[in-house]
Amino acid sequence: MDIFTALHSRRSIRKYTEEPVAAEELRILLDAAMIAPSAGNAQPWRFVVIDDKTLLARIPAIHPYAGMAARAPLGIVVCGDLRREKYHGFWVQDCAAATQNLLLAATGLGLGAVWTGIYPVEDRVAAFSGLLNLPEQCVPLSLVVLGRPAMHAEARSRFDESLVHHNTFDGRAENAQV
Amino acid sequence: MDIFTALHSRRSIRKYTEEPVAAEELRILLDAAMIAPSAGNAQPWRFVVIDDKTLLARIPAIHPYAGMAARAPLGIVVCGDLRREKYHGFWVQDCAAATQNLLLAATGLGLGAVWTGIYPVEDRVAAFSGLLNLPEQCVPLSLVVLGRPAMHAEARSRFDESLVHHNTFDGRAENAQV
Repeated sequence: MDIFTALHSRRSIRKYTEEPVAAEELRILLDAAMIAPSAGNAQPWRFVVIDDKTLLARIPAIHPYAGMAARAPLGIVVCGDLRREKYHGFWVQDCAAATQNLLLAATGLGLGAVWTGIYPVEDRVAAFSGLLNLPEQCVPLSLVVLGRPAMHAEARSRFDESLVHHNTFDGRAENAQV
Repeated sequence: MDIFTALHSRRSIRKYTEEPVAAEELRILLDAAMIAPSAGNAQPWRFVVIDDKTLLARIPAIHPYAGMAARAPLGIVVCGDLRREKYHGFWVQDCAAATQNLLLAATGLGLGAVWTGIYPVEDRVAAFSGLLNLPEQCVPLSLVVLGRPAMHAEARSRFDESLVHHNTFDGRAENAQV
């Protein structure tokens, strides 16, 4: 699939068929996540792959927007490992880029996925840390729920020119040649 | 370009030719950034496009890792607009996903780009806010510097199995069927 098709046809998919995600597909997803850029190339991430039905069924009770996890074949929790950071505080961005790569790879594989946010909501962080036995220095950032999509998504655009500024916010750079 | 080629051949490119980035390419980059997912679909981002040579030349003095900006045709500062947030504190992840989309689109267009971090380093945030006349509620997250690459990058992998955990961090989920 073309990169621009993947970017623009990625959608939040919350309904899946019963078909599992293959081990080779899972490896491709994680490989894509791990090639994301990170501050100082620290790669301060860890991934908890959840395919245990009992664990997946517990998720809706600890995340208000993750009801689909109980009916999904797979969840991946992207965690920041603070022990691996080189530049303090950048792990959130690094792990967000890894999450986005994972979603785009899922789109490229014909899978459907949705990003549900954990950090910085304190009670969700605590609940996922407990569910997954995370060590103290590993902070769950996001839960990606995925499977084979039971719905189809078209490519689209949300370009909004009003969000683009030229040289300075007010477009009146002292020296701008515009 | 295939999505997986784009994901794996994206590299931090810091040397560019003199050729400018075309207006149509710039629109494609921003279109890709704006289709990123965001918490509550708030799209809490703004983009300051910098092509003024005087502004670009000022950047190395305010960012220790952005020397290449002085020799680049284009910079794009991705900002979080806190007034547009729906769920407090998620703007960092949202704008990081937009930044990553922008980098992947640059790869797909044959451009070279590099993500340099601004937030959460306080003096960088203050300096870019001043340089770009940002309003108080707009926080610069990242500066993407880009142009036509003066170097070539091969696709690669950084897959590390030791960063993958199964069902729980220690792989001993009470009920895991593994």
